[in-house]
Amino acid sequence: MDTDTTELNRVLAAAAEAAPKAAESTPAQRAEWLTAAADALDAASSELLPLAAKETHLPEAPRLKGELARTTFQLRLFAKVLADGAFLGATVDHADPAWPMGPRPDIRRAAVPIGPVLVFAASNFPFAFSVAGGDTASALAAGCPVILKAHPGHPGLSARTGEILRTALVAAGAPEGIFAVIFGVETGVTALKDPRVAAASFTGSVPGGRALFDIAVSRPTPIPFYGELGSVNPVVVTPGAVKARGEEVAKGYVGSFTLGAGQFCTKPGLLFLPEGHGLDETLREAAGGVPRQHLLNERIAGGFGKGVERLRQQPEVTVLAQGEGSGEEYSPTLLSVRAADFLKADEVLRSECFGPASIVVTYSSQDELLAVLKELEPGLTATLQAEESEADDVRPILPALTRLAGRLLWNDWPTGVTVSWAQQHGGPYPGTTAPTTTSVGTAAIERFLRPVAWQGFPDALLPPALQEGNPWQLPRRTDGER
Amino acid sequence: MDTDTTELNRVLAAAAEAAPKAAESTPAQRAEWLTAAADALDAASSELLPLAAKETHLPEAPRLKGELARTTFQLRLFAKVLADGAFLGATVDHADPAWPMGPRPDIRRAAVPIGPVLVFAASNFPFAFSVAGGDTASALAAGCPVILKAHPGHPGLSARTGEILRTALVAAGAPEGIFAVIFGVETGVTALKDPRVAAASFTGSVPGGRALFDIAVSRPTPIPFYGELGSVNPVVVTPGAVKARGEEVAKGYVGSFTLGAGQFCTKPGLLFLPEGHGLDETLREAAGGVPRQHLLNERIAGGFGKGVERLRQQPEVTVLAQGEGSGEEYSPTLLSVRAADFLKADEVLRSECFGPASIVVTYSSQDELLAVLKELEPGLTATLQAEESEADDVRPILPALTRLAGRLLWNDWPTGVTVSWAQQHGGPYPGTTAPTTTSVGTAAIERFLRPVAWQGFPDALLPPALQEGNPWQLPRRTDGER
Repeated sequence: MDTDTTELNRVLAAAAEAAPKAAESTPAQRAEWLTAAADALDAASSELLPLAAKETHLPEAPRLKGELARTTFQLRLFAKVLADGAFLGATVDHADPAWPMGPRPDIRRAAVPIGPVLVFAASNFPFAFSVAGGDTASALAAGCPVILKAHPGHPGLSARTGEILRTALVAAGAPEGIFAVIFGVETGVTALKDPRVAAASFTGSVPGGRALFDIAVSRPTPIPFYGELGSVNPVVVTPGAVKARGEEVAKGYVGSFTLGAGQFCTKPGLLFLPEGHGLDETLREAAGGVPRQHLLNERIAGGFGKGVERLRQQPEVTVLAQGEGSGEEYSPTLLSVRAADFLKADEVLRSECFGPASIVVTYSSQDELLAVLKELEPGLTATLQAEESEADDVRPILPALTRLAGRLLWNDWPTGVTVSWAQQHGGPYPGTTAPTTTSVGTAAIERFLRPVAWQGFPDALLPPALQEGNPWQLPRRTDGER
Repeated sequence: MDTDTTELNRVLAAAAEAAPKAAESTPAQRAEWLTAAADALDAASSELLPLAAKETHLPEAPRLKGELARTTFQLRLFAKVLADGAFLGATVDHADPAWPMGPRPDIRRAAVPIGPVLVFAASNFPFAFSVAGGDTASALAAGCPVILKAHPGHPGLSARTGEILRTALVAAGAPEGIFAVIFGVETGVTALKDPRVAAASFTGSVPGGRALFDIAVSRPTPIPFYGELGSVNPVVVTPGAVKARGEEVAKGYVGSFTLGAGQFCTKPGLLFLPEGHGLDETLREAAGGVPRQHLLNERIAGGFGKGVERLRQQPEVTVLAQGEGSGEEYSPTLLSVRAADFLKADEVLRSECFGPASIVVTYSSQDELLAVLKELEPGLTATLQAEESEADDVRPILPALTRLAGRLLWNDWPTGVTVSWAQQHGGPYPGTTAPTTTSVGTAAIERFLRPVAWQGFPDALLPPALQEGNPWQLPRRTDGER
């Protein structure tokens, strides 16, 4: 049932009241909150996993079990980020009468939480990109209260996860109002327009994300909107890779685009193969060997059915593997098109089709390949399957792939997204609405922090991060030196 | 004369062509470009300073001379940022089969330039926030070509500065197309809508900045828009400070709000004094002692004349110092209002009035002070004039000031903005359209970079910043360790 206006107002007021309290918490305290939350979720796995499986049709093991483990690991990793302290960007410039542009006052800079964050949960990862997912973890780590707009695809799981999370956070010392779950499309829009919300994040489709982005930036007070939207995730295979291990590449590709029924934002949607690759039969067999999978929900299944039908109807396209479907279950579809035709074809061929469908694009030369890559819209990932002996040949392809993505892969598949210090899950629009940020990995915390400088303050009134004695033992840049 | 469509198209095409070349430059090469640019501008000072004085009515010395020195210092400081290398955020996670959420691939992250940047120059700092100013310096340092929309307030200076800058950059090895100046409001809007532009920055008024922000985020492909807009820059004076050095504070305040004829985005617009402060006469005398100053141009003078008249007509207001003006010259105006009345008054009293005008707000208690601060819109700075012996009393005021600004000052004036590692020139809207960023200081470079991760790449195909041997000797985080 949708959250009503009275309840939403209570949630927003509580978040606004919690914000200054959360801002006064120490990173060490917030690390305790996150660890407590992770422990509580792990302890509730026997309740949460069946609930998730029932609502999403995803298999409980290994998929959902692995996803919950990833989610609680993520909370604990952010606890390490808080202990590390570099995220505060603490910088101290002492007064310097000889500063070349004129005397420099004592000035010190560190990050503070941006304020209450509204998180729109995704449907396809009911743990890792939902109630207790990466956006929630990074916003809480930053010291921001979170208002979580649940995805309608798993309402029961969202409510229970939210209760467990909130209880654990408050029991660990977080202020009341640190976390709440809300339900309903209109409720989410109302919250997004509320002046008490300081930033928002979203994982989902391009149309949905763009609509919310437009609302966020049209407010009297526009706010940062971190939308992780769509991506076609091209995979380029070189002649050398086809020759050395073509079958392995073909099978790996089918495994990647059908993983989780193709319902990943990193699903590879375009496979660039050199003409005469001779892998049609392998691809057809591999795709044909994947059983029907139950899509997440009726809306997604309906959209996929229409989308794949539209792809098939493009005159330039031939069908390698004809997927079959009924209701909410589909087997994979694999199409093929020549690069020269792709360039002239309807842009539906270069758009994301969420679900188990993909397109092979055959190129006749590297020039033609580059011409096609130049026409693609950016997204989250771009993959190169090549041999190390081809290094000089593939070097010109790398800038074209870099333009297209926030993460480049070499002889790997984009559907695995590790949570680590170096992860970058983002990219230029329409990959995201915020190309300078990431929604996965430790740097995701930066989205919910804003820097503040203190000029000329006595030590006793500086935040601990900037006091002369460095009581938190933070890594700091002092007078330009690391 | 406005840049015509043909020329604009040539400029945009050249910037797009330069972008991948600039992206391949090394930080050391870009440091040479910036140093060469600084040297060339310094060498041309005898030509540029009189031109600037003629077009802006600002005094050649010390003001414009100091501003040019600041501008070339800024270019050289960014050369140091490039030598330091931390701006790349290089992060290396080696493959780890024991990574708790599941085996981790080798993944490495570093920043790349975002692409061509459109910079809208400001009127009030014809060097430091104009053609060769902070936005240009930080975008070039990041490796982005710059298209500079000149401010109509100093067209001749803009053209000459642009020629000198461009010639120096290209002579130092930067690609053709690295920099160009364009003219005209419509030309700027057309450029902002062009798909070849990847980010934009702006320094100026709230209405102007918001209009451009709206265009940037309404594009089919929205882009980051870093607008530095308006700010009232409140100054809070405690009873202790009034008692200890009230006259000095009053005179300092008048000096700050009339500096540069009040045409700074950091001009203090509201002075909070405790009731019974007894400083009216000092303030009146100090303001009365400031001669008429020539405002930047007819448009600003006209806006100021109307704005100050509207302030004076508010029924809650009394006039402490009645400024006089004719044409484009004005002496300062200082008004006074009780905090209780301020809360009920028209919001014009809490809005920026660009030029030599300011308002004293008298508060009867700290609670009343906090109630007023709560109603103010955020901006760039907030200042506290207090005694160290009052530390415990003023502690509750600090969160209220932090909410309002990106920079807090203690017993100093906001109109001085040093360029350093710790500077933060930004703040929540309407201070800026991008509260997580700064437009002054070394961190300004981050606005024009986006992170990219390389997963599983052989060393020979990694960018030097991420190669195993760390050939650039960068500071890197490796496997979570700094």
